[in-house]
Amino acid sequence: MISEKLKPLMANNSVIRAMFEEGALMREKFGADNVYDFSLGNPNVPAPPEVNQAMIRLLSDSKPDLHAYMNNAGFPDVREAIAKSINQKNGTDFDKGNIIMTCGAAGGLNVALNVIMNPGDEVMVFVPYFLEYNWYVNNVDGKVVRVKTDDNFMPDLLDFESKITEKTRVLLLNSPNNPTGVVYPAEVLSAIAEILKRKQKELNRTLFILSDEPYRELAYDNTVVPYVTKFYPNTIVAYSFSKSLSLPGERIGYLVIPGEMEESQLVFDTASNTNRILGFVNAPSLIQKVIGECIDAKVDVGYYDRNRLALYNMVTELGFECTKPKGAFYLFMKSPMEDDKAFVEIAKKYRILMVSGGAFGQPGYVRLAYCVTYQNILNAKESFQKLAEETL
Amino acid sequence: MISEKLKPLMANNSVIRAMFEEGALMREKFGADNVYDFSLGNPNVPAPPEVNQAMIRLLSDSKPDLHAYMNNAGFPDVREAIAKSINQKNGTDFDKGNIIMTCGAAGGLNVALNVIMNPGDEVMVFVPYFLEYNWYVNNVDGKVVRVKTDDNFMPDLLDFESKITEKTRVLLLNSPNNPTGVVYPAEVLSAIAEILKRKQKELNRTLFILSDEPYRELAYDNTVVPYVTKFYPNTIVAYSFSKSLSLPGERIGYLVIPGEMEESQLVFDTASNTNRILGFVNAPSLIQKVIGECIDAKVDVGYYDRNRLALYNMVTELGFECTKPKGAFYLFMKSPMEDDKAFVEIAKKYRILMVSGGAFGQPGYVRLAYCVTYQNILNAKESFQKLAEETL
Repeated sequence: MISEKLKPLMANNSVIRAMFEEGALMREKFGADNVYDFSLGNPNVPAPPEVNQAMIRLLSDSKPDLHAYMNNAGFPDVREAIAKSINQKNGTDFDKGNIIMTCGAAGGLNVALNVIMNPGDEVMVFVPYFLEYNWYVNNVDGKVVRVKTDDNFMPDLLDFESKITEKTRVLLLNSPNNPTGVVYPAEVLSAIAEILKRKQKELNRTLFILSDEPYRELAYDNTVVPYVTKFYPNTIVAYSFSKSLSLPGERIGYLVIPGEMEESQLVFDTASNTNRILGFVNAPSLIQKVIGECIDAKVDVGYYDRNRLALYNMVTELGFECTKPKGAFYLFMKSPMEDDKAFVEIAKKYRILMVSGGAFGQPGYVRLAYCVTYQNILNAKESFQKLAEETL
Repeated sequence: MISEKLKPLMANNSVIRAMFEEGALMREKFGADNVYDFSLGNPNVPAPPEVNQAMIRLLSDSKPDLHAYMNNAGFPDVREAIAKSINQKNGTDFDKGNIIMTCGAAGGLNVALNVIMNPGDEVMVFVPYFLEYNWYVNNVDGKVVRVKTDDNFMPDLLDFESKITEKTRVLLLNSPNNPTGVVYPAEVLSAIAEILKRKQKELNRTLFILSDEPYRELAYDNTVVPYVTKFYPNTIVAYSFSKSLSLPGERIGYLVIPGEMEESQLVFDTASNTNRILGFVNAPSLIQKVIGECIDAKVDVGYYDRNRLALYNMVTELGFECTKPKGAFYLFMKSPMEDDKAFVEIAKKYRILMVSGGAFGQPGYVRLAYCVTYQNILNAKESFQKLAEETL
């Protein structure tokens, strides 16, 4: 009954569902406050109040285009406001002609991959990585090529360069990173760009960076998240407001296609039309307008930061090993046991839920998502202590 | 730079863009009131007031799940409300387990095709048809097979049966129809279902109907739009609120996967997950909630009906030939000249814009979209008179 291509999806999905159901059962049995669920990457800080206020204002005004079709790329004024905001923060030079409104970053990534990939083309990712990328690449009959990172999850540039072939089309970057929380500094991006530029010439083939940036605004310790298009012109940025404005269900984000890209206008026009024919048609209209009015609003990043420090300090003081995350809301902790799945199982005894590193292509680790309440982290201390006693 | 598969898209797109630009120029030159633009299928009746009221209420309540992720299939209570509403109107027996919220019908069609198609599979359509289907089928590497209709645009069942092969997977139906406005009566659907059931056995291969129903609520003269799942169990319905609630920009609709379908649960689960991996993730959250509260609200269909009669009477009284439409907001008129493109060009002299039948796979006709103001139709009379004088 179902497509051959999707059959493996359903097998994988049952694993995720089993984990969800286990969490629900645990909450039912012990009470939500007594379960320490670090398994889900769902923003828990509410949307800034400006968002709902802007929505109510727009609905009260009720202009005729509020719920209407617009250009597949989105409302021009909203795209212009976004371009200006990016420029102000990053010293770039975009205008509305570089911005396409999308259904979140997931929508944007799918549009971009459809535009630039041919069947059999390769997409490189630095491991560990968000395994959902595998499905996006599968949608366009591409192949994921995994590249190593070092102990601090920074790209292994020798491994990277050695794996670029005449099949390579895209490097899919994600910084701030899910699941590690690392942010790639300017020197790393420079080195990556230099390799790609050299290889482009050598292979006489266009190589893209596709930069997945849903966590761009969630950076801590004054960490700068450099703007990738400034390092490498053939870069498409996929941004989402899911985390920066805590609107994950609304599906709103954008693609940036810089003017410096080869055949930029063709890529832009194709992406805009691909947005339509993939069935998105356009990003949802009301929420586009809201973005235009709240372009510089931001969730309380300090809340996530406090959680980050509380959890990081707690687990490292107990003796667990972990690279200090600089962004996003994840902590990627070394499993003290070789078998990270067994470690995840033991943690459940203490009502701690986390995801094994294998789910991000890197066994031997676990991911803790700290988008939970601060109190929940504090309450988890006794459980982590017991886990440390049993496993360290 | 761009995918081989999408290169033809851009060629096609420039034609559409040229038409748009011509309309804009004409409005600038002659004033919007003096241009009779029947080229665009954009709803012009405003959303019913309940919609914005429900939105404002939901935003004022501001419950924590308002903008949050939910199950990929959508909010369970909204899906249950939709199922009940369909049951009440059509005597079906659905519940939330049969409904998946989607980004409009375009999103739903793409999800459905991804779920049930393998590369090389064939999708049958009755001509004339919405040519955008070609791109949806191209997305899954399928092939469109065109089936004839009679002078009243009813399916040619002999041609239909003769074109079903071991490659056929889907019949893509659209009733009320774009561009003809015809509605398939129960006897036509029965005959189609009988052929498909017979061919399923003969070929030992599952054949689907995919029923694209954005115009279901726009039916006139008390015309019944039969519910396709009651005729044929392997039917997936793709519905949209774009027209029934005039919310085309918000991208909201649903898929119906009936329990009577073979392996219904597998198809449902796969579609739900495919909604995620294609990048939709889920239909936009706030508007889902609004649908749950406004399930039986409807735009003023009488407005379209008045337009329909005014335009139909006007053109037929002038001597043009046209099957009277029973639904949607289109009128498919015979071009009095063999070359419908030439006819469209002549009409422009009189500031009438319409789309040539070739854009729907049926040259020799033109499509007039009457989702314009009533006054605009009345004002167009003199221009149509001149057009009749010149071409009839």
